[in-house]
Amino acid sequence: MPQYKAPLRDMQFVLHELLNAEQHYANLPAFKDNVSRELVDQYLDAAADFCENELSPLNQVGDREGCQWNDGEVTTPTGFKEAYQKYIELGFPSLAVPEQHGGQGLPSSLATTISEMVGAANWAWGMYPGLSHGAVRTIEHHGSDEQKAIYLPKLVTGEWTGTMCLTESHAGSDLGIIRTKAEPNDDGSYSITGEKIFISAGEHDMAENIIHIVLARLPGAPKGTKGISLFIVPKFNVAADGTLLDRNGVRCGSIEHKMGIHGNATCVINFDNAKGYLIGPENRGLHCMFTFMNTARIGTAVQGLSASESSFQGALAYAKDRLAMRSLSGPKFPEKAADPIIVHPAVRNMLLTQKAFAEGGRALVYLLSQYADIVEYGSTEEERKFADNILSLLTPIAKAFLTETGSEAAKHGVQVFGGHGFISEHGMEQIVRDTRISCLYEGTTEIQALDLLGRKVLQTQGAMLRDFTKIIHKFVEANKDNADMKAFIEPLAALNKEWGDLTMQIGMRAMQNPDEVGAAAVDYLYFAGYVTLAYLWARMALVAQQKLAEGTAETEFYKAKISTANFYFKKILPRVRSHVDVIAGGLEPLMELDAEHFAF
Amino acid sequence: MPQYKAPLRDMQFVLHELLNAEQHYANLPAFKDNVSRELVDQYLDAAADFCENELSPLNQVGDREGCQWNDGEVTTPTGFKEAYQKYIELGFPSLAVPEQHGGQGLPSSLATTISEMVGAANWAWGMYPGLSHGAVRTIEHHGSDEQKAIYLPKLVTGEWTGTMCLTESHAGSDLGIIRTKAEPNDDGSYSITGEKIFISAGEHDMAENIIHIVLARLPGAPKGTKGISLFIVPKFNVAADGTLLDRNGVRCGSIEHKMGIHGNATCVINFDNAKGYLIGPENRGLHCMFTFMNTARIGTAVQGLSASESSFQGALAYAKDRLAMRSLSGPKFPEKAADPIIVHPAVRNMLLTQKAFAEGGRALVYLLSQYADIVEYGSTEEERKFADNILSLLTPIAKAFLTETGSEAAKHGVQVFGGHGFISEHGMEQIVRDTRISCLYEGTTEIQALDLLGRKVLQTQGAMLRDFTKIIHKFVEANKDNADMKAFIEPLAALNKEWGDLTMQIGMRAMQNPDEVGAAAVDYLYFAGYVTLAYLWARMALVAQQKLAEGTAETEFYKAKISTANFYFKKILPRVRSHVDVIAGGLEPLMELDAEHFAF
Repeated sequence: MPQYKAPLRDMQFVLHELLNAEQHYANLPAFKDNVSRELVDQYLDAAADFCENELSPLNQVGDREGCQWNDGEVTTPTGFKEAYQKYIELGFPSLAVPEQHGGQGLPSSLATTISEMVGAANWAWGMYPGLSHGAVRTIEHHGSDEQKAIYLPKLVTGEWTGTMCLTESHAGSDLGIIRTKAEPNDDGSYSITGEKIFISAGEHDMAENIIHIVLARLPGAPKGTKGISLFIVPKFNVAADGTLLDRNGVRCGSIEHKMGIHGNATCVINFDNAKGYLIGPENRGLHCMFTFMNTARIGTAVQGLSASESSFQGALAYAKDRLAMRSLSGPKFPEKAADPIIVHPAVRNMLLTQKAFAEGGRALVYLLSQYADIVEYGSTEEERKFADNILSLLTPIAKAFLTETGSEAAKHGVQVFGGHGFISEHGMEQIVRDTRISCLYEGTTEIQALDLLGRKVLQTQGAMLRDFTKIIHKFVEANKDNADMKAFIEPLAALNKEWGDLTMQIGMRAMQNPDEVGAAAVDYLYFAGYVTLAYLWARMALVAQQKLAEGTAETEFYKAKISTANFYFKKILPRVRSHVDVIAGGLEPLMELDAEHFAF
Repeated sequence: MPQYKAPLRDMQFVLHELLNAEQHYANLPAFKDNVSRELVDQYLDAAADFCENELSPLNQVGDREGCQWNDGEVTTPTGFKEAYQKYIELGFPSLAVPEQHGGQGLPSSLATTISEMVGAANWAWGMYPGLSHGAVRTIEHHGSDEQKAIYLPKLVTGEWTGTMCLTESHAGSDLGIIRTKAEPNDDGSYSITGEKIFISAGEHDMAENIIHIVLARLPGAPKGTKGISLFIVPKFNVAADGTLLDRNGVRCGSIEHKMGIHGNATCVINFDNAKGYLIGPENRGLHCMFTFMNTARIGTAVQGLSASESSFQGALAYAKDRLAMRSLSGPKFPEKAADPIIVHPAVRNMLLTQKAFAEGGRALVYLLSQYADIVEYGSTEEERKFADNILSLLTPIAKAFLTETGSEAAKHGVQVFGGHGFISEHGMEQIVRDTRISCLYEGTTEIQALDLLGRKVLQTQGAMLRDFTKIIHKFVEANKDNADMKAFIEPLAALNKEWGDLTMQIGMRAMQNPDEVGAAAVDYLYFAGYVTLAYLWARMALVAQQKLAEGTAETEFYKAKISTANFYFKKILPRVRSHVDVIAGGLEPLMELDAEHFAF
């Protein structure tokens, strides 16, 4: 059975050495006095202990048992409920909630590091508290004082959980066509009727109440996305003082049988004249919900990072242990029956790919979570706006690129194990199955790509992109005379320039035909992802070089960083070339065939 | 539930229009008088009917129910046994077995087309008869007359099935270290003792006897691969007249819980002083088994092709039906709530990728099966030798490239469905799980890559490769003045030349350090795969252009071929650029880290 080990040393490298977390917190008035390195490390240690010892052992249990549906009730796998109780006792749910709402008022970037560990140890479990987060944020920012008073306290402690009910069977990415109805009642509440699907953690036995945040249409609402409102719909109705009343007209009709994340209940939720409460203005539901789109998408990017990390851990242990064949350059362990497979370059290539995606992905996710801190708590409007731009640009990249690379890493994990990778007991194939959903929910890779190229880059006439390429440019300029950095700086500088040129080229085409955006978007996203990670790997190499120059007891740790950066630049980054060439192929080869002529 | 539809029109295009199957059979004395187009088409129709109506409906049943192990006995999923009886009644098992062994004496290339349909309809089921094939061929070619008389008749009819027992828990790719022992008995038989794992179809309830072909070591055998012998070990001992006797010391200890192919029993088989019979010379077991390595590997390549085809069929139907969002270039179906997703370039890109891999893969597999016919039945030694060279070169390419592209196609199938792709009932995620094994068994992608670059290309000093690049060169020369072919011929000519240059470059490096072969092999294999498929797509485009020029009632079919070729050259083939650049990165970035410094 695979045992997750929190990569604390690397997490600290990214937090403290790459991203100067202490300085980052010191710059934010909300955290200046209450977030020290000691505090951060204490939380990391506590979370690592919980993830390694409570959640990781339940990961295969959850996959094997799955959730059981019985007449509207859902039973979670053995141990899930008890682990959730411990999680509440440890205070994790309230960590990043502001103090005025009963939380601990700590930065969400700290919560993100904990999410990584939870996700790598047991993603399916982590979705139960994870989904609550969205409900809390929605009520916190858009709820009335009364709604906050009623729903927040127990959501914040984790005694209740929350969901986000968006999707209907005919409407996924295209929320404009949802049909769930909200009819006003005389008492100011609404009667919600409709069927929602794919509701993660929509029903379970881990908490005494579940607060659903539901998208629905008011009578006579405008068609499309501008006629959607947002409602709070509790499973059990709640009195003003927070005590539970009768059961509301909310019922789990069934749970899905699916490829992975078996431990999490993916529910069909039927609302049958359920009592709901409007949250935020009428017809502005999507707007309210999109406030947290970036956060939710970074949360999904974490799943990709988690898959890279956990599949790397499994594959590395196996590659050092498993004996097969001899190194082509002669036996490395002649006393053994064969060499451990880590001697083979193809195996090393897979391990280093996983490692480069895990550590590079960690840097990207933690960086974004710092920008998210600034968006919320930055001292000046200018600072917040700038962070919001960078965050908006990098979020679809992180979501799509890290989940796709996480899937690739998971595949390598299976492949390193050979035939044994296909066998459930080793845990590698579960990662492939669990992480596949990350490329689908919260907007597929293709949707993220359109968001990046269409909305973020082209609709801003490149302004958002330039904010980021300027950051890379500054880094390049600052280090261009550093001989040790040459192997990183030269290709990064060239690609940073090419990013702009490529954007121009696509923008010109798109003026002729907007479908050119759809034709280029996915390859553009990969290009952006590889270049973004190249920038972060170059920065990590620089930090490591500086540490080595200063003198350190951890020589091998820093040398490994530089080696991995070297691997990334020589063996991963060249992938951009194909994406550029495919983009050059344009729209025409995709549109020649009529829909009826794809098959005969 | 997905319903498989045999792509008969495309199969006929490849067989008859691209590969001139009639002429091919007319050239082989064994088939000259007994294989007509009518006969081929009759078999295709009968197999299509069986696969569509018997096997396809059992595909999800098999996945859901899996196999049940109970005290050594294995029960296959509902309907599997009955379908197998029909398969026997239809005479499919004996199709490609020579008449002197009780078969129908038809070409194995014809059997391959049927395998494709069986595999696409229900791969897990198809492995039961599929594994028998290896046992039949082994006995046919290496068995004594007595062994043939005892075992072949009922294996050929399909009344008995067969297995290949190679792998042990510590020995997969590295068969040289297997431990199963064979002790000689006084009566000329052997006592076989040991444990084999991953034995597909190793135990089941579909046939009255199972004939295991087992690798084991004789007492005092030389170490490594040169000390392995091959044995026939029946589940039930068999009298000279073929009647069943007592149960042999062969027992299924358990079956594996695995990612996919749940309908096929993957068995641990314990041999406990089981009675076995030496087949072929002592210590030449691997040699005997490797006789059919190419056939088995092409059989696995078929799995990749099948996954591309079945995932394409599922995704295409959904993409035409599912409504979401509007085309970026304006609504295409303004009367509907949204446009069908096939209007979106990113969706088309995934569908065309699946289509290009399915149809290109079909061309490659069928081409190889013709070479396999010639290796076995060619009139001259020269002809047979040449075919064997091409087959040896292209087999690892077909096995690894088509299974990896099949996995990619399966992934696109899920992605086209969005969140619904993750749900079991739609059948798309099953394809991902079922086909993942194809990249692992019969030698992983990494092993195939070493076989290609190391054994086939470099060890022959490029001779085998030149045989094939000359074929491409001839095709290029013959069509270089055809203006309609320019878009295909020019890049193909350039890549064909580059293939040689790339090989030289790696060969030079490998002289310095043999590990350079391991570092380059996987990317080299992808390069070879993309170029090989480019050659076949160019040939298919040429055939289509000729048909259109001649005049045809099937204009749209041939235009779709040319469009798909165009898509392949513009949107898939550029992937070679990254593989070339990654190869240029060499070995060094892979070897810097000590095994102990991959993680801290």
